[in-house]
Formats: sequence, structure tokens, C-alpha cells
Amino acid sequence: MKRIAILGGTGYGGMEMLRLLLGHPRVEVVALTSRTEEGPVAARHPHLRGFTALSFTRETPEGRAALGRDCDLLVWAKPHGVAAREIPEALEGGATARVIDLSGDFRLDDPAAYAHHYGAAHPYPAWLGRAAYGLPECGQRAAVAAAPLVANPGCHAAATILALWPLARGGFVQGRVAVASVTGSSGSGAVPRPGTHHPERFANFKAYRPLEHQHLPEIERALGGGVRVDFVPHSAPLARGIHVTAFVPVGDAGPEALAAAYAEAYAGEPFVRVLEGEVEVRASMGTNLVDVAVTPGAGVAGRSIAARRAAPFRAADWRRPQS
Amino acid sequence: MKRIAILGGTGYGGMEMLRLLLGHPRVEVVALTSRTEEGPVAARHPHLRGFTALSFTRETPEGRAALGRDCDLLVWAKPHGVAAREIPEALEGGATARVIDLSGDFRLDDPAAYAHHYGAAHPYPAWLGRAAYGLPECGQRAAVAAAPLVANPGCHAAATILALWPLARGGFVQGRVAVASVTGSSGSGAVPRPGTHHPERFANFKAYRPLEHQHLPEIERALGGGVRVDFVPHSAPLARGIHVTAFVPVGDAGPEALAAAYAEAYAGEPFVRVLEGEVEVRASMGTNLVDVAVTPGAGVAGRSIAARRAAPFRAADWRRPQS
Amino acid sequence: MKRIAILGGTGYGGMEMLRLLLGHPRVEVVALTSRTEEGPVAARHPHLRGFTALSFTRETPEGRAALGRDCDLLVWAKPHGVAAREIPEALEGGATARVIDLSGDFRLDDPAAYAHHYGAAHPYPAWLGRAAYGLPECGQRAAVAAAPLVANPGCHAAATILALWPLARGGFVQGRVAVASVTGSSGSGAVPRPGTHHPERFANFKAYRPLEHQHLPEIERALGGGVRVDFVPHSAPLARGIHVTAFVPVGDAGPEALAAAYAEAYAGEPFVRVLEGEVEVRASMGTNLVDVAVTPGAGVAGRSIAARRAAPFRAADWRRPQS
Amino acid sequence: MKRIAILGGTGYGGMEMLRLLLGHPRVEVVALTSRTEEGPVAARHPHLRGFTALSFTRETPEGRAALGRDCDLLVWAKPHGVAAREIPEALEGGATARVIDLSGDFRLDDPAAYAHHYGAAHPYPAWLGRAAYGLPECGQRAAVAAAPLVANPGCHAAATILALWPLARGGFVQGRVAVASVTGSSGSGAVPRPGTHHPERFANFKAYRPLEHQHLPEIERALGGGVRVDFVPHSAPLARGIHVTAFVPVGDAGPEALAAAYAEAYAGEPFVRVLEGEVEVRASMGTNLVDVAVTPGAGVAGRSIAARRAAPFRAADWRRPQS
Repeated sequence: MKRIAILGGTGYGGMEMLRLLLGHPRVEVVALTSRTEEGPVAARHPHLRGFTALSFTRETPEGRAALGRDCDLLVWAKPHGVAAREIPEALEGGATARVIDLSGDFRLDDPAAYAHHYGAAHPYPAWLGRAAYGLPECGQRAAVAAAPLVANPGCHAAATILALWPLARGGFVQGRVAVASVTGSSGSGAVPRPGTHHPERFANFKAYRPLEHQHLPEIERALGGGVRVDFVPHSAPLARGIHVTAFVPVGDAGPEALAAAYAEAYAGEPFVRVLEGEVEVRASMGTNLVDVAVTPGAGVAGRSIAARRAAPFRAADWRRPQS
Repeated sequence: MKRIAILGGTGYGGMEMLRLLLGHPRVEVVALTSRTEEGPVAARHPHLRGFTALSFTRETPEGRAALGRDCDLLVWAKPHGVAAREIPEALEGGATARVIDLSGDFRLDDPAAYAHHYGAAHPYPAWLGRAAYGLPECGQRAAVAAAPLVANPGCHAAATILALWPLARGGFVQGRVAVASVTGSSGSGAVPRPGTHHPERFANFKAYRPLEHQHLPEIERALGGGVRVDFVPHSAPLARGIHVTAFVPVGDAGPEALAAAYAEAYAGEPFVRVLEGEVEVRASMGTNLVDVAVTPGAGVAGRSIAARRAAPFRAADWRRPQS
Repeated sequence: MKRIAILGGTGYGGMEMLRLLLGHPRVEVVALTSRTEEGPVAARHPHLRGFTALSFTRETPEGRAALGRDCDLLVWAKPHGVAAREIPEALEGGATARVIDLSGDFRLDDPAAYAHHYGAAHPYPAWLGRAAYGLPECGQRAAVAAAPLVANPGCHAAATILALWPLARGGFVQGRVAVASVTGSSGSGAVPRPGTHHPERFANFKAYRPLEHQHLPEIERALGGGVRVDFVPHSAPLARGIHVTAFVPVGDAGPEALAAAYAEAYAGEPFVRVLEGEVEVRASMGTNLVDVAVTPGAGVAGRSIAARRAAPFRAADWRRPQS
Repeated sequence: MKRIAILGGTGYGGMEMLRLLLGHPRVEVVALTSRTEEGPVAARHPHLRGFTALSFTRETPEGRAALGRDCDLLVWAKPHGVAAREIPEALEGGATARVIDLSGDFRLDDPAAYAHHYGAAHPYPAWLGRAAYGLPECGQRAAVAAAPLVANPGCHAAATILALWPLARGGFVQGRVAVASVTGSSGSGAVPRPGTHHPERFANFKAYRPLEHQHLPEIERALGGGVRVDFVPHSAPLARGIHVTAFVPVGDAGPEALAAAYAEAYAGEPFVRVLEGEVEVRASMGTNLVDVAVTPGAGVAGRSIAARRAAPFRAADWRRPQS
């Protein structure tokens, strides 16, 4: 049994990590820390009542250091900026545990891009580019397996990269890619804000940060090979789920070649399901599964396709459907 | 044309008051004040773009006093506690305008009940009981027409009182009344709070403050005659609208007598529609109309009825459907 | 491993039964039948892709008979009226499997009540009253364990009975009970109908069949002891979940006695969680858990309480939270 | 006062046309026809109770002919295929009224494209191309004013064309345009279907008919100039509203030129609002207004923009905001 501690258990990231790991046969969550919460976790998260006897651990620097020596894995589920400071200090300070960071603090390798998108200089710029990017399906499996620090992909980024990976990998991309991504409100976190105020979000739909969202650089970095993306995220009246429609110029590639590219790219992947027909957010809601589909551009002279996927919050790679 | 100023234009109450009054043929909104907003109202409320050229007025005590001398009507659209101080000071300080208060500060007549339900002693207890209660349909028309101060009913209260008024008025109520009221999220106001955080409100339903909501005393006061109510409000995944189901023991009163009670109570009322069959929140959404229906208790030995209505935010009595 | 067949796998009842049983360690679903569907179940229900290799079995009378000899349990997930014919014929025709019926065909014992509420005379009235009522928590455990036929409770009924059972069992009920029940749209089944047409259901709330819903007689029968209920169901803009608020006159019973009644009634029950504070449909969504809470009527002279619970679709009793 | 009859008053198109026209100062709706409904319109559409005394007119060929002689305008609010037959017969049969068709039957000019997208040959192919296309803002005002027949744009089409028109008109479009359009469920009509079944639509999001929706040819025809569009429509968990994000390669056109193109294209248009910042479906819900915004592609080498708009159902051009 691997021993895991989740640092920052009052946000949605840490809470969902716990929920998913409670069903995992080979891990034990030994601590869920918080600066503000005390007492049984199930008292704050009633849906977990009966499924865990864990209580919140009041987080202190000493306690964090002890967990870093005692556990196999630490998961940082904290806002960006906080993880940027605490994780290098932990890993340089004797932590033997491996680390997964759910924030955006270690996804980029360019200090200028980090400062531009996250609003402040990175406190440990030497650490930028040192984390493995946590998408095993996209050429990162060996790196993820070996790295002391794994940067969990952003929500829009994971959805977009998995939609485009088979095409980027296969050299099909002939020009700029247009991506319309749609997200539920839980992606904005557990702290009430105007953009997630129910009377404003209900029965509404809008774009936000068009063409300049902070997930864009990690998308282009992960796809590599000079793929350029125009990215517009949207707020949907959903609590969970992400849906991406990507428009990709693929020259004269035909339906068979495109279908084969997706089938081969994800053959044997337990958490990516390549579907015929449409994908819908509902089908993977609450899981760590990803559904992908591709539509050859019949009727548009084979010059475009629409690749789509729906992705819920992604936890560690553990949940293996039957084959 | 009546000249109206709305004090506190950044909340939902003031904003909806403005929206409804912009369509009124005989009033002019001359000012919408705010402590935080500046510039055109339509820049903050895009749905009003093209419908008003009004800009926010920065509110000051002097400005408020000037509006009180200059206008025919001042509408306080501010949190309870604020109105409790400002309105008596305005009316005792030379304001010639009449006043409507959207908060709960002047709906009760008992200082102890006010302190219990609103969490602090009323700063001007002598004013408790002096306001007319703004439900013209429930015996208050003359008082509303004459009073310098009108206390606009609470959202749950307006819905519940209009459902029960024909039975209370007719002496049909034979015992305690059970009321299950359901509200949308905008009733909690424009400030993001945990209870209106979209990820928590979405796809959810729960009761809150069961049997002790602050609207209970104004309901029992307005119904009079010793009617006693057990009241449980619920949070629904709606942005707007209120739906009330009231269970009323009515002895051996028959269907005809009950139908007649509702027909007579609301005959000639322009904003209350007595429906056969079910009422639904959708049908009156965004209006100041109220739909009411009654179901005689066939099958339960004629001992109970369910009276229901759906009510959106109520503005001043102006919108007159064709007859 | 118990061998289970689900008859009628295209409706929500059968589909949810399959989804829940796929996670059960001690049962195997050997067949899911349909008159209309063919091929892999996961092709019609994409959320199950990767979790089951089962294909639909084309249902025939002979095939049904074979399953009745071959399986440990048959689950009828078909509309009322159909189950009423097929189940007696199966059990009188040599089926050795035990049977659970998800429809309302065997919940009542009075042919007249059945005909009144289900719109036709029961084809096998001698079978009315012979099924065990599938609420183990409410005094039915031994009967359920022994009976060849178990009638699964109605959705509103299960929610209401579990809310009231501790009070009925303890003799607390001093008069008529008022129940406001709220349901999501999936309770109306998988066939599109006007009441579940998205444009009509969205952002709406209404009552339906007030005081005469077909679940009322099974509620009063299960509670026994002459408990009388006024029942009003409501359509909420939810897909899943049921929330019940019940108003119960309990004389002078105090908070401790009421809390003890709930604690004792459900002590050791793995699927009923007695909560302090509010219950919400979200917390049990997609599970076979039930949350219950009780609010003593402080402030209403101790004469009423509000007992509430949220219940999703109930499958067989299997999912055991950790203690 | 113009006299208007709406043919086919049980669908959402006819019902919304009636609702919007009831507020129009210079038109009178003299008839709303139906094959299935009788009695007061407000009995079927309770939200209209008190706003109209109109009753449904049972539609017959003779009655239709009489309305065609008696009225100034006939609005066909019927499914495609029906309008294709009835309108030419009416206009060739002596109708003096002008006609607006809400269906897709007269939006295209190519019989082959019509047959491909609407599933049958057009019964009166000579009429294809003879209708004016009802988007006055896009160069059609004179044609709409003069034509005996106006084809009302499709919902996705109106949204997409108004988003792109300033760029097409100004010659900014340098390559294929990618359009992600999002629609609410009422666009699928009032007849319950699987795609608008609440349990399936709720908390879900998906694409449908990607790259081959029937609105694509009318979009490309209306934009003219060889503009080519890759179009993917999506089903959102909304009842109303459409949101379009269009990705347009505009070469080296800068922010000022693009902003000027939108400002000039819609200067003086009463029903199109060019906004800075984001558009949201909520702001124009229930109106015939259209909001448009443009985002220059700073950060993507000026090679792309995202132009967006939200459009509800469009009725006749009448509602004039104050300037």
C-alpha cells in the first residue's frame, strides 16, 4: 500500500483526489491537511460520510516536513503561488516522498511566460521545466514514473492536449488549430467568486479570457512540434466536466488515416476511450476517464476535422476499467 | 410622471426595480445610487443597454437628502440594518418623498422579534409597526396608498401570504398550516456566498433554517387571526422564482367554497392570477405577477388542501395586464 | 457469486441497477434483456464503456423462463402493468429464481386501490399483498430475506417512509402528516414526455398530482398504525434525487426524544445516514444511500418537526460504507 | 395597425412570435392557428394569461386563404416541408398578405443542397432563391422591405452571420472560418424528443451533426464572397439562447480596424448591440436583440480573432431600445 498525503484538503482538487483514492485498492490516504478545517472530513463533505474516518490535519511546516519523510507521495492541492514556494522547499529540504502538484506552478518552463500568465515572478525559477507533465498518454509515462515532481495538467489543457495529441504525434497538423473549450464552474475552485455566483452562472453561457488563457502555453508546450493554437475557453452552466471542440487543418488526410491515428495513439490506455459518434461530458462525469472522438471533414473538402473530448477532474492514474 | 430614486442600485433588488420601472408609462427613474459603482448603469447591467441612459449616482448623505426633497418616491434597496438607520433619519429629516423599503427592517412590529431574527436591536424601534405592509391584495391597499413608508414583503412571505390570504380572510383555517417554500438563488442577493456558489447549488436541493426563517413572523402578522404556520424554506437550483405549497386544514369546506374564496379574494386584482390546475414558477418569471391555485383535498376526507403560488421578485404595483 | 438477470434494460431503472451491481463484489449480472436494443450495452450507455462486456439479450418468453431457472435473482425493470402479468406467470411457471420488481404492480394489497391509482384492474389480484416490501430498514428485513417476490418501493415512497419511520415506529405521530416531496426528471423514465421536455422542465418548478399521487397508499400501508398523510409531489429542475420535507405533529416530544428515535431506528443500517443539520440531494446522488435529518419544532411550541431525506434511485442492498 | 396572422401556434416559434408581438405598438395579431389546439391561447400558455384574449383558430385551407386576403402579414411557424407546400400555394393562390416563413424551406437557392439537408426534394423548387433572407442588418433591408416572402434565418445561422458579417463585408477574411455554436434546447422545438429529454440534456454538453448541420449552406450563402466555414453546433444545458465563437484568420488587420469594422457595420442598427468585453446569452434572453463582441488576436501574432454573439429566437424587427 502506498501512503499518500493530500496538502490542502478544503478545495475541490484535494477533495476529489480523496474521493477517487478512497476507492483505490493499493493506496492509503494517511492525511488531508487544512489551515482552516478541523475534525472529521466527512463532517465537511457529507457525501463521504461512511466512506472515511479521516480527520483534517492542521497543517504546519514541521508537519509538512514529517509527511514528506513518512509518505510515498504528497499531493499539493493548493492555489498557484503557494505550491511554487512550498514544493521546492520540501524537495530541497529532505522530503523523500514524490510530489504531484495540482496547481499551474510547475507546468511551464519559461519564467517570462509564468510571470505573464500567473501574475508574479516564480519564486524558484530554476525549478521551471524540471517537473514531469502528468499526461502519461501523451509521451510522458516514463518521465512521470521517474520524476520526483509531477505537474498535473490544467483542466482545459488536459482536455485539449488529449484531443489533439494523435494528430500532433502523427504530423497531421497543417496550420493553426482553433479550440473552443467549455468548462463547468467547479474548475474555478471552492471559493465563491462573481464568475461562479449561481444567479449569474445559471442559464448563461459566455467566453472568458479569449485567446489569452493561462493554459494555452502548456498546451503548445505539450503538443510540441510548433503546433499553434487559438484558444477560447467558455463558462457553461455546469458544475463539472470539460468539453473541447478543436478545428484542425489536416490537409488531405482521409477518414481512415485519422481514425487510425486516434486508435493507435490510445491503444491500451486504460483511461482514454476513443468513441465513434459524439462524446458528452455526462459519460465521464466524476471519473478520471477521458472520451475522445474525431469527425473527418466530409463536406469541407477534407481540410478540417473536429476532435472533441470531455474530461472531468483528473486524479492519479489508477482506475482501471475491465477490458 | 412620478419621479423615483432607487438607493442601492448594485444589488438585485434595485436592479430589478429599475428594469421593471423602465417599462412603466407613468414613472421616471431619476437616480440609481451606489457607493461602489460609477458610470453608465448599462455598462454594469448589459441587458439594459439601449434601454436606459442612466448613470450611477455616487451616494452621499447630502445627495440622499436632496433626492428626498426632489422626488415623489425613494426606494431603499439596501441590506437590512442599513435601511433601519437611513430611512427614519430621512423621514424625520425633511424628506417629502414617500419611501418603499425592500429590506426586512420595517416589516415587524415587535422589537424582540426583530432582534431575534435580524441579529441586532433595531436602531429606531419606535418606527417598528409604523410602515404599511406592501401587499395591496391582502387588505393593505388603503394603508399602502396613504403611508409615508411601505415595507415591501419578503420573498417567501409574499408567496406564502398570497397563497393563504383567501383562507385566512374567509375563516377557513382550522389548525396549524404547514408551508414548504422553494426559492431560487437570486433571493440571497448579489454578493457571492457559499450557499449561492454555483458548484454547490447546481443539481442540488436542500432545506435551510427550517421552522425558524425570519419571514415567519411577518407571515403570521399579515395573516392575522391567530393563524399559526410551520415554515420550511428550501434552496432550489433556480436563479429566480418562488414556489409555495401550503397544507391547510379546512374542516369540511368543499371544493366550491374553496374555489369561491380564491376567486372573490383576488377579483379585480391585476397582478394575481387564480389558475385552475398547477402553477409553475416559469409562467411569472421576470414579472410582478403572482399565480395561485387551490386543490381541494379529495381523497383525504376533505380535511386538507394544497394552495400554491409562484412569485418572482415583486416591484411596485404598476404592470396591468389587459382584461 | 449470485447470478442476476435484469429484465428490461433500456429504461433508467434497469440501467442504474446494472451500473450499481457492476461494482458489487458478490454478484454477477448474466443478462440484461431488451425488446428493442441489440449489441453491446456500452454502445447504448457510453458511461459503462470499459466496465462491462455485456450485450443486450433479445427477450422472449422462453428466454425469460430459462433465466428463471438459471439465475438466483430476476429483476423486473419494466413499466407497471407488464410486470403484473409476467411475474406471476414466471413464479407460477417454474422459476426458481427470486424476483425483485421495480414497478408499482405489487406494492399494494387492495385491488380497488391498485385499479384506482394504476388505471386498470390487476391481472393477478391474488398476488396483491404477497410481495415483501423492499425497505429492509423499516421492519421488512426478515420478509425481504425470505420472500420469493420483493416489491421495490416507489421513489417518493421510499423517501417519505424513511423520513417518517422512526416517528411512526415510536408512536410519535399525533395527527395528519404533511409531505412535500421533490423529484428529478429521471423518475419519469427514459421515454420523452411533455413533463420531461427540457425546455419545459428547465428553470421551472411545479407540483403535480397534488394529494392523489399513486405512491400515497404504499406510504400509508408501510407506515401502518393509522398514520394519515397529505402528499404533494413536485417536479424540480434536477435529473436525479428526491428530497422530502415532512411536517409531523408530535405533541410534546422533545428534541432528545426525537433525535433518539432516529438514532435507534437506523442504528447499524449501512445505507441510511442520520445527519445533523441539513440533508441535500447532491450528497447521495448516484448511490443507494439515504440521508435523514430531523428538526425539532423549537419556536413552534414543540408541536411540529420537519423530517427530511434525500434519496436517489434505490438498488438492491449491497453497498456497504466503511464503519 | 398592421394585421398579422400566425399559422401554427402550438410550436415555440409561433408562441414566441405572439409573445413579442403582443408588446408591439403598431401591430395586431388577429389569428393564431392550430390543427390540434382549441380555446383560449392563455389556457395553453399560462404566462400569457391576462395579456391576450385570443383563442386558437382551427386551421383549414379555406381559412388560410381568407387570412391571406384579410391580413397584412402571414407568419408561417410550421415544420420545414409543410411551409414548402403551403406558402407557394398561398402566394400563387391570391394571397395579398406578405409572408414570413420561420422554417428552413426558403433559405437556400440550390435544390440539391435543400434535398441533401432537409431530406426531401423541394415541392416548389422554382421558389428557391425567391425569398428575401430576413437579416436586415446584413445587406438585406431593402430586399426584406420589398419581398412578398421573407425567409427567417435559422437560429445558428443568424448568430453566426451577425458575428461574421462585419468581417466578410470588409474583406477581412483570409481563410477558412471555424465556428463553434452553442444552443439551448428550445431550438429543437416543442415536441419531446430524445435529444431534448431532460434527464439526458441536464448537466450535459455535446456536439451534434459536426461539420454537416443544415444551417451551414445558408451561412455561406448569406456571407457571400467565397467565405468558407467549418461549423460545429453544440447542445448546451440551456432552454434558450445561442452563443457563437468564430475563429477568423484576418491577416495583419489590427485591433482598431477590427473594432471599426464592427462599429460601422452595425451603426444605427436598433437590435444589434456591439459590446466591449464578453457577450453572454443571459443579457439578450427573451428579446430580439443580438450582442456582438470582437477580440483581436493579440498574443497569436494577429492572425486570428474570436467574434462572438448571443442570440435568442429572433422575431420581426420591431423592438426599438431608446437611444
